[in-house]
Amino acid sequence: MAALARSVLVTGSNRGIGLELVRQLAASPRPPQHIFATCRDPGGPRGKALQELAAQHPNTVNLPSIRGAVRAVGSHLKDQGLNLLINNAGISSHATLLSLDSQEMLSVFATNAIGPLQEFLPLLEKAAKGSGQEGLSCSRAAIINVSTKLGSIGLCLGVHQAPMYPYRASKAAQNMVTRCLAVELQDKGILCTAIHPGWVKTDMGTEKVLGYLRTPSAPLTVEHSVRGILTVLASLSQDTSGAFLDWEGNSLPW
Amino acid sequence: MAALARSVLVTGSNRGIGLELVRQLAASPRPPQHIFATCRDPGGPRGKALQELAAQHPNTVNLPSIRGAVRAVGSHLKDQGLNLLINNAGISSHATLLSLDSQEMLSVFATNAIGPLQEFLPLLEKAAKGSGQEGLSCSRAAIINVSTKLGSIGLCLGVHQAPMYPYRASKAAQNMVTRCLAVELQDKGILCTAIHPGWVKTDMGTEKVLGYLRTPSAPLTVEHSVRGILTVLASLSQDTSGAFLDWEGNSLPW
Repeated sequence: MAALARSVLVTGSNRGIGLELVRQLAASPRPPQHIFATCRDPGGPRGKALQELAAQHPNTVNLPSIRGAVRAVGSHLKDQGLNLLINNAGISSHATLLSLDSQEMLSVFATNAIGPLQEFLPLLEKAAKGSGQEGLSCSRAAIINVSTKLGSIGLCLGVHQAPMYPYRASKAAQNMVTRCLAVELQDKGILCTAIHPGWVKTDMGTEKVLGYLRTPSAPLTVEHSVRGILTVLASLSQDTSGAFLDWEGNSLPW
Repeated sequence: MAALARSVLVTGSNRGIGLELVRQLAASPRPPQHIFATCRDPGGPRGKALQELAAQHPNTVNLPSIRGAVRAVGSHLKDQGLNLLINNAGISSHATLLSLDSQEMLSVFATNAIGPLQEFLPLLEKAAKGSGQEGLSCSRAAIINVSTKLGSIGLCLGVHQAPMYPYRASKAAQNMVTRCLAVELQDKGILCTAIHPGWVKTDMGTEKVLGYLRTPSAPLTVEHSVRGILTVLASLSQDTSGAFLDWEGNSLPW
């Protein structure tokens, strides 16, 4: 099996899904040539697991700081551009409508819906152009936005158990951005897809609330979820650019 | 035909859809007892048409200032609460992803997705409780969020002609809030529905861009759109709480 992509950047990679994505990518039989793992404080105590992972794979895993990441990534990649951006950074919020602080809703939105898209777009365009490939794929150029079933307006799942308005609203906004980007970037050879990783045992703040929504008999491990996600990513094409899929490749309603 | 509701509050009522809603409600054979029309600057030059309308219907149309509107509305209504909140205020933005200023996206989001929901919820709850009615309807207690087809993630309409990311994302977020509210407020007797008013000739900033998307042979007048909206509102019930409908009552995908 070919590498999923020559170069991959994963945001929010110090824990949970992000950390496991970096781990499985680095450990795969044909790993990407470059894995860039970003998070807010890679040098701090919360970045410990990521530092250990980078030490195990010194030629593959890089930890650029968020400030200046574009320049650092660009200079590593030279003229080849970035193939795959996995936009996994996100924050959770449990606010209900009435307890909601506007400022909180705004910052959740900025982090979840925009993230590093704008910054890395030029590097993705470069990869798409220089790839020598036709069609859309993660090995050519792709943006994967890690979304959530809680961001599905159509499902509107478990509102009573977990109101989480800011989180849901910001994820719906992110899904809109995903779909608009898919349309806008298609002609430039860049794929864009939203992925729900399943309800995974991570230390993210959502865990407690999401516990209500998970089937207790089938807890999804982070290893299992990420194995699924990577299989789905390898299968993405023109047909699934602009889609909202879960870690098993099932389509979800917006 | 009975009045649509005993009391109605319309935000963003100094022009376009909002102004026409106030006009048609006030001029209807059985008008609401109280119409509250809010906008950013009702006393200024942009509030002129609204002032004239209030002068024609001095016993019905009130122009409370936005600051203190809840208190002013509450004291007018005494113990009866507010039946119908039409959340029509909104701003437009033409930004593409790359020209996007985060701050702009945030302020669009705050205005479109939250607006006066939190403020007026207690008055709506009071109306729902004291109505003596069963089921959900605009005459009992309802929140109508004026949305747009451009906020449909599923349609993802005309992205090339009108990228408008912040506007679309904020409207998707607003749609999420509409649907969550419908679920959360159902037990309290409050209906919540999103309405797309059609592409109407208004002086809102979207006009120029939306021109691309409108069928030139069928321009929708603001009178026609609002007549449709009011007919739809009168028909809403338990079955359409949490729906996304256009001005003719057709269901739209999220």
